[in-house]
Amino acid sequence: MNQAFDADADPAMAKWRRQAAAERVRCGVDNQVWMTPEGIPVKPVYTAADLDGIAHLESLPGQPPFTRGTTATMYSTRPWTIRQYAGFSTAEESNAFYRDCLAAGQTGLSIAFDLATHRGYDSDHPRVEGDVGKAGVAIDSVEDMNLLFDQIPLDRMSVSMTMNGAVLPVMAMFIVAAQEQGVDQSALSGTLQNDILKEFMVRNTYIYPPRPSMRIVSDIIAYSAGHMPRFNPMSISGYHMQEAGATVVQELAYTLADGIEYVRAALSHGLQVDQFAPRLSFFFATGMNFFMEIAKLRAARTLWADLMDEHFSPENPDSLRLRTHCQTSGVSLTSLDPYNNIVRTTIEALAAVLGGTQSLHTNSFDEALALPTEQSARIARNTQLILSHETGIRNVVDPLAGSYYVESLTGSLIREARVLIDEIEEAGGMTAAIEAGLPKLRIEEASVLRQARVDQEQEVIVGVNRYPLERETPVDIRILDNHAIRKAQVGRLERVRKSRDKRAVTRSLDALAEVAASGSGNLLESAVAAARARATVGEISDALASVFQRYRAEPGVLGGVYGRAYEGREEFRVIQERVMAFARSEGRRPRILVVKLGQDGHDRGARTIATAFADMGFDVDIGPLFQTPEEAVSQAIENDVHILGISSQVAGHRTLVPAVMAGLKERGSDDIKVVCGGVIPQDDYAYLYARGVSAIFGPGTSVPEAALQILDILESDRVQEHA
Amino acid sequence: MNQAFDADADPAMAKWRRQAAAERVRCGVDNQVWMTPEGIPVKPVYTAADLDGIAHLESLPGQPPFTRGTTATMYSTRPWTIRQYAGFSTAEESNAFYRDCLAAGQTGLSIAFDLATHRGYDSDHPRVEGDVGKAGVAIDSVEDMNLLFDQIPLDRMSVSMTMNGAVLPVMAMFIVAAQEQGVDQSALSGTLQNDILKEFMVRNTYIYPPRPSMRIVSDIIAYSAGHMPRFNPMSISGYHMQEAGATVVQELAYTLADGIEYVRAALSHGLQVDQFAPRLSFFFATGMNFFMEIAKLRAARTLWADLMDEHFSPENPDSLRLRTHCQTSGVSLTSLDPYNNIVRTTIEALAAVLGGTQSLHTNSFDEALALPTEQSARIARNTQLILSHETGIRNVVDPLAGSYYVESLTGSLIREARVLIDEIEEAGGMTAAIEAGLPKLRIEEASVLRQARVDQEQEVIVGVNRYPLERETPVDIRILDNHAIRKAQVGRLERVRKSRDKRAVTRSLDALAEVAASGSGNLLESAVAAARARATVGEISDALASVFQRYRAEPGVLGGVYGRAYEGREEFRVIQERVMAFARSEGRRPRILVVKLGQDGHDRGARTIATAFADMGFDVDIGPLFQTPEEAVSQAIENDVHILGISSQVAGHRTLVPAVMAGLKERGSDDIKVVCGGVIPQDDYAYLYARGVSAIFGPGTSVPEAALQILDILESDRVQEHA
Repeated sequence: MNQAFDADADPAMAKWRRQAAAERVRCGVDNQVWMTPEGIPVKPVYTAADLDGIAHLESLPGQPPFTRGTTATMYSTRPWTIRQYAGFSTAEESNAFYRDCLAAGQTGLSIAFDLATHRGYDSDHPRVEGDVGKAGVAIDSVEDMNLLFDQIPLDRMSVSMTMNGAVLPVMAMFIVAAQEQGVDQSALSGTLQNDILKEFMVRNTYIYPPRPSMRIVSDIIAYSAGHMPRFNPMSISGYHMQEAGATVVQELAYTLADGIEYVRAALSHGLQVDQFAPRLSFFFATGMNFFMEIAKLRAARTLWADLMDEHFSPENPDSLRLRTHCQTSGVSLTSLDPYNNIVRTTIEALAAVLGGTQSLHTNSFDEALALPTEQSARIARNTQLILSHETGIRNVVDPLAGSYYVESLTGSLIREARVLIDEIEEAGGMTAAIEAGLPKLRIEEASVLRQARVDQEQEVIVGVNRYPLERETPVDIRILDNHAIRKAQVGRLERVRKSRDKRAVTRSLDALAEVAASGSGNLLESAVAAARARATVGEISDALASVFQRYRAEPGVLGGVYGRAYEGREEFRVIQERVMAFARSEGRRPRILVVKLGQDGHDRGARTIATAFADMGFDVDIGPLFQTPEEAVSQAIENDVHILGISSQVAGHRTLVPAVMAGLKERGSDDIKVVCGGVIPQDDYAYLYARGVSAIFGPGTSVPEAALQILDILESDRVQEHA
Repeated sequence: MNQAFDADADPAMAKWRRQAAAERVRCGVDNQVWMTPEGIPVKPVYTAADLDGIAHLESLPGQPPFTRGTTATMYSTRPWTIRQYAGFSTAEESNAFYRDCLAAGQTGLSIAFDLATHRGYDSDHPRVEGDVGKAGVAIDSVEDMNLLFDQIPLDRMSVSMTMNGAVLPVMAMFIVAAQEQGVDQSALSGTLQNDILKEFMVRNTYIYPPRPSMRIVSDIIAYSAGHMPRFNPMSISGYHMQEAGATVVQELAYTLADGIEYVRAALSHGLQVDQFAPRLSFFFATGMNFFMEIAKLRAARTLWADLMDEHFSPENPDSLRLRTHCQTSGVSLTSLDPYNNIVRTTIEALAAVLGGTQSLHTNSFDEALALPTEQSARIARNTQLILSHETGIRNVVDPLAGSYYVESLTGSLIREARVLIDEIEEAGGMTAAIEAGLPKLRIEEASVLRQARVDQEQEVIVGVNRYPLERETPVDIRILDNHAIRKAQVGRLERVRKSRDKRAVTRSLDALAEVAASGSGNLLESAVAAARARATVGEISDALASVFQRYRAEPGVLGGVYGRAYEGREEFRVIQERVMAFARSEGRRPRILVVKLGQDGHDRGARTIATAFADMGFDVDIGPLFQTPEEAVSQAIENDVHILGISSQVAGHRTLVPAVMAGLKERGSDDIKVVCGGVIPQDDYAYLYARGVSAIFGPGTSVPEAALQILDILESDRVQEHA
């Protein structure tokens, strides 16, 4: 059946082979080797023979290469930290929520910021009209930060902050808020995400180009090495890669390669490896491929220890130790039949814990619909409490150690990730590889292939492409009043601007720009001074942008991947023929512009649609990220498209889509049909249809299904025109 | 730290010991060996050294002793059967539900019967007024069975039936219904529970005494060996033991000991072991102790193969193969914060699958409140579909094989279960051991100890004794109209009685009684003839009871176990003192009668309360099982109790409790205070209070809490009397 089996001369194994063959015949199964999305062949049975040649087998927990865990006793002495990522529009609301969570058993905080903050805009900036308070808390100044941590003792509470673009002003404001609470920065514990490389790969909340961004990262590492011994200055994140469609091997390899790049950046800053490496931390996603995810964390620890040792020979063994936060997979959640998500999140959480994570976020079951409600947040937190208190799994360290399958999978992941890491090294390291677009391309390919598997039901999603619910029961979701939130936030911002010493602000911002321009001095130190003077997130970001510039990514579409996955399939050929028929009758192919509006950088869906539609024969344009409604309208008109497709992931649609519709009408181009896709609650459908949207595609829609609907719209439009 | 570690001279292990000690000091943890409820010491770390001396390590799946699975390829060629146990009051309703489930991805049926049917009463019998249609479908005659399987092709659908007491009429009616559908009995596949021994231990849905009950079992085995080659004539069940509070070792040992006893019974019937042993099947619970449950299934297969080989030397290896159904644990579910149950059921389902079950029932999250709704049943089924389709765990057989911890735990369970099995053998086998009350006593002790651990928060239940919800959100539950269901059922029964050939019925029942009395002939064969003639469940049961008698268990209370667990604890001493104070002032101790009403035999709660209250100093009587309201009232009055405690698990309270209140009033004894406990939906509280109930204790109540409330009631009553 495969080489490992054939090579086995054991009579019991020979008997097993005969039995297996008979069972396959009886059940009508052809092939029993499961080729995972990573390209790792998984056999139906593993035995002790599969442990041959696995290097990490003898290792013990708490000892390099840390395969079996970062400490000797792991959860048997200290449970993982239950760290739920959350932010609710305003600082006051978030603060109240955090305090409730801490009272209900949560053990650490994790702050989600809104998109305006991420991208370095104040709440009153015209580009962020639809983004303020969406997907997290809006922070404009240190006064917001003070409210956020009101009555939360920062010397005792570990705080994680997901911030990458506007990392300087936000970190600076956190330090100042603590000081104004009477807590010295040396006492602060927690983690800053501060991982800009993966932003260029997948998540897109960067502000400046890669190289100045790397300067910011290393300045923060240096600052924290000097002043904040208990704080993790960065969380090197694979999470968003898996969310964007990366395979587990890609997530593993590119995250560690990012880590190596950061270490090099810090070394080039003059630091010694042991000064900062022990405080680097990681962040992985935990998806639904149960054993693969467990093996991934074991592989990540092993591989990081090996890589650090090979490249930097640290003296402190702590520099070899990979500590990580995990989050259950957002992309595995469905907006259809959403209670299924409780099941998914439980399985994923268990995998993260069996893999040995240091802290964990479990998603709320309604996360594919909206921000969590109190009830859904409680279920998510209880998922961890139940795992921690009721299952007994905390008592034994790395309980799967020795498992023929898990050890073999761990070995395979190490091997496969090495291949990708070597590729990055050959490209000159991660910054260079990113500039060349290499990892982004590979991830996008994996993502499109996955979409094709789901569309073809080779991958089953219960309640979505198999066993669908006849009629969805409405779920109570959290509704935001974007307008009111923005108004309140802008009001506070104006009060801050009025009451501060304007000249001190200007001086501090000038000093910051000078540090940026000169290349000497520490950017975070200057940002702290500016934050203390009540400079805002937007002002600090603009001061830096005056030197570094804002980065604009080149949009582009990957061709052929989706179409190849459909090669020879009738349903695909039918679509291609209808597209060609349209082209014959209209004199040109149907043209579609796919756009993202506002500061929402989650472009996996948009890019997948773009590449799949191109493969079906559509003429596809893709807009640059962060467009305003007016910019999208202009591009649609200039390109003379038939269809404008808006992909929305973070709830900006209620503000931004009507603006697009109005813009098209105003410019006499309302013959352009508008369709929407992404995370749009069912309750908003009527609202959007009433404003003239032609179709809305929820997250469960297969791409061919969407294409067929769009063709229907185009064809009925043409019939009407010709009538 | 313990011998295995001290004996290890490996320097890495020595280093681990030093690290572990330092971590324990840092985290303030004294002892790191976890003593499980089974008394198995679990260490914080396992290594290859822990595999020494484990006998089953080299085995392959599909080969004796089947540690790694019943077949060579397990779920990689054929997924486990998703078999949801369900019955909804009437045959029509159940039939509609089953057909929906099959359409939604379920792959087998499992029938739940109501308590009246279980205990061999027709729906119009006066003893079952509160029981008809509760917890399952009411079956009176073959006409009900015909409705139950309407449009369900019995030659293709595997059907499991949970029936033990009235196993002869029900199995007979199933065979006749199939024949009338045109399906010969030889084509039927599925499983009959038919495990009477555990009924005497824990579940109490027996009808006749142990020895005639064993004759019924072996007649069914013989019949199916002759006529039904695809049908499993029994499912030897540990499930109800774990539900009743047994440890995993007890569940494992007593189930296998039951199996040995059944094999002996069948052999004494003149059968050869290989004629029936391959068709024996098992049924285990899967609780929250994740790795213990996985190890249990592996241990069960190994141990059964060894035991069968030792005792009966079968020639067919299939006679050594333990195939099992599993159900997630009902007792692990909570009525408080019930969405937590989705998480629990997911974890348990995963354990059952990783342990290698052949089929699985996942509980609905509202099962601790009521019968499942359509939505909760869907989530339960989807839990399995998600595990099956989205996690990749189906692709590898016995994926934890080789794990140092899991293999070691498997070995420990085999060893510990052997000790209990030997004890049963020394007592003369299971029938004799049951007559002596041995296993019942051991299980009850484990159950009371568990209650004490939960009451003292040594065992945490999230949302119940830790992290409680401030305000429970109401959950939509299924409400039954018991009265209407009974009326409809009685109507159909009357029509059957009118239209049948009365003399043929009498002849068939006489023939059945003769087979019972003579000891020769096959009881199932005679029951099939009676069922075909339209004799009812009650009539067939009565014909047998005229020979065998109905069995009545001796009620009795286990002393001292609960109190010992509380030794030296202040809260317990306070209660004991209040009880003594009451006794000093009243001249006698507070006296309580704990009763179960109707056919609800789930007496774990009642017995635990009885033993705990006795240990607190109360004078405790416990009523015999299956009392009518009138009988309970008489006993309360005769025993001159202060308190009548009614424990209700299966929704009879709305009919039976008002009858008790009326009875007390009628006999001028309404000074006896009535309290209720068990599974009573919040919505029914007002209804019961309005009828004069003094207190209701939900499933989350700790025993000391209940005792304190009862003392409050008694004392305020005394104050009023003396005022």
